[in-house]
Amino acid sequence: MKGYEERQKLIGRIADSFHKGVYHGGERKITVPRKESQATSEKVVSLEEAIRRCGLRDGMTISFHHHFRSGDKVLNLVMDKIAEMGFKDIRIAASSLNDVHTPLINHIRNGVVTHISTSGMRGELAKAVSHGLMDNPVVFRSHGARGSAVANGDLHIDVAFLGASSCDPMGNACGYSRSPNAKSICGSLGYALPDARYADKTVILTDDLVDYPNTPTSISEHDVDYVVVVDSVGDSSKIASGAIRDTKNPRDILLAKTACKVIVNSGYFRNGFSIQTGSGGASLAVVKYLRQSMIEQNVKASFALGGITSHMVKLHKEGLIDHLIDVQSFDRVAAESLRDDPKHKEVSANEYASPDEPGAATKFLDIVILSALEVDTNFNVNVLVGSDGIIRGAIGGHPDTAADSALSIVVCPLLRGRIPCIVDEVTTLITPGPTVDVVVTEYGVAVNPRRPDLAERLAAAGLRIVTLESLLERALHVIGTPAPLPFGDKVVGVVMNRNGEVMDVIRNIL
Amino acid sequence: MKGYEERQKLIGRIADSFHKGVYHGGERKITVPRKESQATSEKVVSLEEAIRRCGLRDGMTISFHHHFRSGDKVLNLVMDKIAEMGFKDIRIAASSLNDVHTPLINHIRNGVVTHISTSGMRGELAKAVSHGLMDNPVVFRSHGARGSAVANGDLHIDVAFLGASSCDPMGNACGYSRSPNAKSICGSLGYALPDARYADKTVILTDDLVDYPNTPTSISEHDVDYVVVVDSVGDSSKIASGAIRDTKNPRDILLAKTACKVIVNSGYFRNGFSIQTGSGGASLAVVKYLRQSMIEQNVKASFALGGITSHMVKLHKEGLIDHLIDVQSFDRVAAESLRDDPKHKEVSANEYASPDEPGAATKFLDIVILSALEVDTNFNVNVLVGSDGIIRGAIGGHPDTAADSALSIVVCPLLRGRIPCIVDEVTTLITPGPTVDVVVTEYGVAVNPRRPDLAERLAAAGLRIVTLESLLERALHVIGTPAPLPFGDKVVGVVMNRNGEVMDVIRNIL
Repeated sequence: MKGYEERQKLIGRIADSFHKGVYHGGERKITVPRKESQATSEKVVSLEEAIRRCGLRDGMTISFHHHFRSGDKVLNLVMDKIAEMGFKDIRIAASSLNDVHTPLINHIRNGVVTHISTSGMRGELAKAVSHGLMDNPVVFRSHGARGSAVANGDLHIDVAFLGASSCDPMGNACGYSRSPNAKSICGSLGYALPDARYADKTVILTDDLVDYPNTPTSISEHDVDYVVVVDSVGDSSKIASGAIRDTKNPRDILLAKTACKVIVNSGYFRNGFSIQTGSGGASLAVVKYLRQSMIEQNVKASFALGGITSHMVKLHKEGLIDHLIDVQSFDRVAAESLRDDPKHKEVSANEYASPDEPGAATKFLDIVILSALEVDTNFNVNVLVGSDGIIRGAIGGHPDTAADSALSIVVCPLLRGRIPCIVDEVTTLITPGPTVDVVVTEYGVAVNPRRPDLAERLAAAGLRIVTLESLLERALHVIGTPAPLPFGDKVVGVVMNRNGEVMDVIRNIL
Repeated sequence: MKGYEERQKLIGRIADSFHKGVYHGGERKITVPRKESQATSEKVVSLEEAIRRCGLRDGMTISFHHHFRSGDKVLNLVMDKIAEMGFKDIRIAASSLNDVHTPLINHIRNGVVTHISTSGMRGELAKAVSHGLMDNPVVFRSHGARGSAVANGDLHIDVAFLGASSCDPMGNACGYSRSPNAKSICGSLGYALPDARYADKTVILTDDLVDYPNTPTSISEHDVDYVVVVDSVGDSSKIASGAIRDTKNPRDILLAKTACKVIVNSGYFRNGFSIQTGSGGASLAVVKYLRQSMIEQNVKASFALGGITSHMVKLHKEGLIDHLIDVQSFDRVAAESLRDDPKHKEVSANEYASPDEPGAATKFLDIVILSALEVDTNFNVNVLVGSDGIIRGAIGGHPDTAADSALSIVVCPLLRGRIPCIVDEVTTLITPGPTVDVVVTEYGVAVNPRRPDLAERLAAAGLRIVTLESLLERALHVIGTPAPLPFGDKVVGVVMNRNGEVMDVIRNIL
């Protein structure tokens, strides 16, 4: 055998031809037991240290998820620290914003935050933005459009700050915890997953640092740069608040029953159908009535999609729904089911609804039940800006599911108090009319003229089919023609569609 | 309210300032029920169609995983099709190759395959390569180094062809199946995960196309372009064959008992320790004896890592090992445990052992038991090339775990028949001596001089501490000095280390 020395020459020649370096012996070898190093993982740092090591600079884009909804404690905590550290011109890419994020108003006034993109906005922040708080318009995208924009670079994230209910020192994180010290639970981290994957740097904030390895893993250490332990990432009791609550409103119950009748007679109600319900009271209530029909007619669903609620979990446990596909757990029961049930699947925003993904779940969706602030006579829907011109909602998966599903049903009362919901022109265009099939009101069901097949089936089932024009007339008869809203000329918001085009603008309200 | 027309002008202006297009109405809306489209998913195509649509061209790199070990049916199937379609100069990036891949010899002779990178090679192909079959040297990398090279672009994969035991029409795949039609099971898809994520195009081959959604998901549809249904992706009964079998060899049992004694007295055997065993008979047998010590001394492990066997599953079920971290399921019991047990975690090659990942599991590893074909007096180890100069093994995670663990133990007999295993210079350098702590032979235990702490503890425990020089002398005394191997001057293989440097070359054997 030729000696090492001679071999080294050959190795050098080959390395050159490979454009590779040559190994010259020696190898780092730490000789302390690794269990010690778990506690001193280089990834576990303070929030300030994480911000510093991520190389945050003025003008960068940082992201947050909204799985804790109005219980979220991460965004304010991080923004206060960033402000304290003296950064300016930060761009926030949130999956959504809530009334809990009122402190952003000050950060905007102080120049710490200059741009926001989000799916929605509520409360004082939304009011201030609507009145012209920001120099740059807020960019609104649907969940699917955001996932797509994050993946294709249209919305480049420099640093993602993602709250997790448990995380190990290496960064394996998820939206629940099996440890006895569990403080919070949010279930699916669906809207955080694209950020973790595509952001240049990812910081996990957690209130439960568990031993490595944290299993099952939602966000992998592979995508995590730093782990920050905080007192609380969110108040789990508030994930079911806001838009998500059971309705006791008799009108909502009437709407839900009618929507259920539409589903059952639509032609799509048959074994193996799939369904998503939005987060409005009426659309959630549909599930209760649908359950009865499923039992009576022995029809089972293949999956329920989207924001998963305890109602859906109940049907799943009863064997009425085979799988739950969960981009966001809407209550604690759903979050616990995700933790415990292998047929309860967590999906990223992209796997849920990205227009760029042939395998996105929405493309398999038969039926979606959606709510609306306004529907106009062209079936266009607004779920973002109130009829008073104030931003008060979220796009969510509305346009994604309407476009991709086989049957999209919008449930909407004729009036809310003195405010008309059927209008001649939506205040803001969120979901284009061509993607909406049926509008259910307490005064009848309007079917998109593009769907004569549907209108025929529903009429045959005894449903009262009306036109949106006649509903509009009825509304105007009750309340009279409303005065035009006093919009100014400043553009405070831009609504992007699923393809990354500008679909509408929101002007400041005076 | 200003009319749509007026609004359109404003939208256009904003879109310009955003460098964005404007939405001009209309939206694709498919009005057929989606359940029909599941059966006609655009992703589900024939193998030929998948190859065509992936844009395969001469000179491209395609990848395969080896989770079915010698039961693999995917590589030969795909290569036969690629040959039939007339492609030339294909570069194969396999996670490993086995004796079942003998048909590659013809593809190499015919110019269909010109480059191979892999962790190992066995059987006729290995013999032919060792004798100079290929014009270009085979590039050998450890599992961690391959994961790293795939992620950092050093090993760019154009198209990955990945076998899966189940997959839905959208591409959600995993190494087991919950369907009654399950044909195969391989458990973890750890070595396939980097390929799915980083390859330009990913094709899943499956013998069990299940209804959407396939849960839990190992490889996400997000990373999958095409799904090809085949008769069989692999023979599950063969995953436990090859290197992985229980030993009945009395010498192996003696080695295992000694290695167990080393572990117990090393200072690393205490509550919360972590362990990995290689795939050699003796190193697997260690687990059996270790179990007894764990029970007697009431010591529990935090996790077992790497290739997971039924032995490890047994200890896990008994509560002796808290988590299993599985990059490759070594038998059916392990694969089924991965399917059923939430504390049995699947990890990618990168999460397992990438040198670039601070969170790689190997960096948390206390103890690793490894086998060897040869160990030289500098503690260098060879696990790839036999003492006859023929390639007959695989690098696997050997150098990764040796480098990262706190205690690396190589178990190796003095002689195998007339072949010395303790040598003055390894035929091929795979794992550098500085990363090897202890060598266990049937004639005593050698401790790396870099670890006087260990030598002291083991001597105190009554273990017979010897030098590798004395072991070499003993071997030479028995068999005499072997004649040098008749190597030629053609480089048939290149061994890369974990940092992407050329560590050694393999020359043709005459």
